[in-house]
Amino acid sequence: MSPAEVQSRQEEPSSGATPEGGATLAEIARAAGVSAPTVSKVLNGRADVAPATRSRVEELLRRHGYRRRRGGMQQSQLLDLVFHELESAWAMEVIRGVENVARDEGLSLVLSESAGRLSPGQTWVDGVLARRPAGVILVLSDLDAAQRAQLTSRDIPFVVMDPAGDPGGVVPSIGATNWQGGLAATRHLVELGHRRIGVIGGPASMMCSRARIDGYRAALETAGLTVDPELIKRGNFHHESGYAIGLELLRLPDRPTAIFTGNDLQALGVYEAARELGLRIPEDLSVVGFDDLPLARWVGPPLTTVRQPLTEMAEAAARLVLDLGRDRRPAATRVELATSLVVRSSTAPPSR
Amino acid sequence: MSPAEVQSRQEEPSSGATPEGGATLAEIARAAGVSAPTVSKVLNGRADVAPATRSRVEELLRRHGYRRRRGGMQQSQLLDLVFHELESAWAMEVIRGVENVARDEGLSLVLSESAGRLSPGQTWVDGVLARRPAGVILVLSDLDAAQRAQLTSRDIPFVVMDPAGDPGGVVPSIGATNWQGGLAATRHLVELGHRRIGVIGGPASMMCSRARIDGYRAALETAGLTVDPELIKRGNFHHESGYAIGLELLRLPDRPTAIFTGNDLQALGVYEAARELGLRIPEDLSVVGFDDLPLARWVGPPLTTVRQPLTEMAEAAARLVLDLGRDRRPAATRVELATSLVVRSSTAPPSR
Repeated sequence: MSPAEVQSRQEEPSSGATPEGGATLAEIARAAGVSAPTVSKVLNGRADVAPATRSRVEELLRRHGYRRRRGGMQQSQLLDLVFHELESAWAMEVIRGVENVARDEGLSLVLSESAGRLSPGQTWVDGVLARRPAGVILVLSDLDAAQRAQLTSRDIPFVVMDPAGDPGGVVPSIGATNWQGGLAATRHLVELGHRRIGVIGGPASMMCSRARIDGYRAALETAGLTVDPELIKRGNFHHESGYAIGLELLRLPDRPTAIFTGNDLQALGVYEAARELGLRIPEDLSVVGFDDLPLARWVGPPLTTVRQPLTEMAEAAARLVLDLGRDRRPAATRVELATSLVVRSSTAPPSR
Repeated sequence: MSPAEVQSRQEEPSSGATPEGGATLAEIARAAGVSAPTVSKVLNGRADVAPATRSRVEELLRRHGYRRRRGGMQQSQLLDLVFHELESAWAMEVIRGVENVARDEGLSLVLSESAGRLSPGQTWVDGVLARRPAGVILVLSDLDAAQRAQLTSRDIPFVVMDPAGDPGGVVPSIGATNWQGGLAATRHLVELGHRRIGVIGGPASMMCSRARIDGYRAALETAGLTVDPELIKRGNFHHESGYAIGLELLRLPDRPTAIFTGNDLQALGVYEAARELGLRIPEDLSVVGFDDLPLARWVGPPLTTVRQPLTEMAEAAARLVLDLGRDRRPAATRVELATSLVVRSSTAPPSR
């Protein structure tokens, strides 16, 4: 929803029978040549409508900018949270934030995974239409244009947390200052005296990962250091990726004395690669992670990392989507919460 | 639900208007001196019923053993999962298992936390009555007798995973062979040559934790070793507890050469205590964990631990509760999945 759309919702009367969109349900039904209850079934994601009818009705809803009114409906008891991948302690931090807000608001949390695809499937969308949550929070996951239109016509608000793609100004979203985080991590290493600093990113399709690497570059360039493309690698956000790319970097003839990783799990993979090669951390290799998951404090040595306030970000996303559902205009529809460097014991001046 | 109750449900006709319990809804209404729609509201957890009326109706439902029929109702789209504490990678493994089954069955997962209390609150129960899930899975959490009666009268089945208390034969539950796990962990240390072996348990109120310590004792006794009460400690399942009790054990004049911890997070706390005292793992101290969370492989040195198949346990719990809801009699209403020892690099023969 663009700021302009949010604005227009503000200006509408908050109750009454006036249709929100340009057409009433009866008009949509007439145009589609079906009964009003059939349109209602489509709006509610019911399965007992022929596919051809369903897509004709969806098309008309979209074309007429139909918007269901929430006023007369029973207050929703649910809040939907969708992950791209339901994995690792990372997801746990996010779940905890959304659960905090859900509990405060007397809502129950519905959890889904789009199972490795970056967009949730149509089955999921049908489920959302049927259960009518108070809002939808998508984590590292995005809806396509048709899915967005479906939710909008049912007046189900949605926000994206830490979007994988570039949601533009259209979709409200919550992120973190990834570029600043990359800058702070790399500056810390430069100030310790490191000159050959490797970096391991996440997938290039994820904007958060690109921003971190750009911050790394900026730190080197503003310090007057050369950016060596050989030291810039990309993997995925898993431990295995940190291990494999860590080995690759540490086996270079002129190996880096420090590595800034895309997240804490990758950093632990680099720990393992260093152990395997007999390199000590931080004496022979400094490592900086990203996220500050609880385990960053527990590993040996405790990990220097860029803290991303995941729980707070999830809380902000949940509050934003509920505000949108209540026709309260949020202060901003794109918010980035601050990252901060947490220095522990995995970084030290280089020994050579 | 006892096996006998499960049995009795099997023998009832699977459709038709015969009331399942001893009384119809109309009879309950008459006895309570209210209208049938009021009883219906209570059954659906609606808020618009006076508290006194609600408790009178609940009492009659319980006394008459009323059981709502599922047959006529729309198939539920939801599966409820409740945690005692929504924390750590442990919960993530469980969520993943339930989500696997939910996805296979086209159900959405509703996630709640009883926030540190061992029983979920009445607000949660009211929510469940209103949303009518296909089933409820409680993790390390239990319902009191009144709450059980409420779910039973609405024909909402529930199971407990890894029960904190002793659910007896009444509540269907899924656990792991905790005693066997404690035995295997301690035998491994005895076979390496350790004689002074410390143990850190979880809270005494949790049966899983008691069983692990009893397994530890059995291993020592069957090996003809003395059980030294000074080496048996209890904490909670967090990292901090492992650290604090680890320091305590390692500062004993005749310190243990090995420690078996209540879970992997405690084991990492012991790692930290050892680092602080300058003791190397495994040269100066062997450590065995419990759970085999992903991080057990990633820490340095990789942790020897007792694998508990959390994801499989969660899957089994989800399948069991759905079977109960479909009036399929499960093979058993208490299942323990096998634990297994995973030997990595945190255990070795004692150096002294």
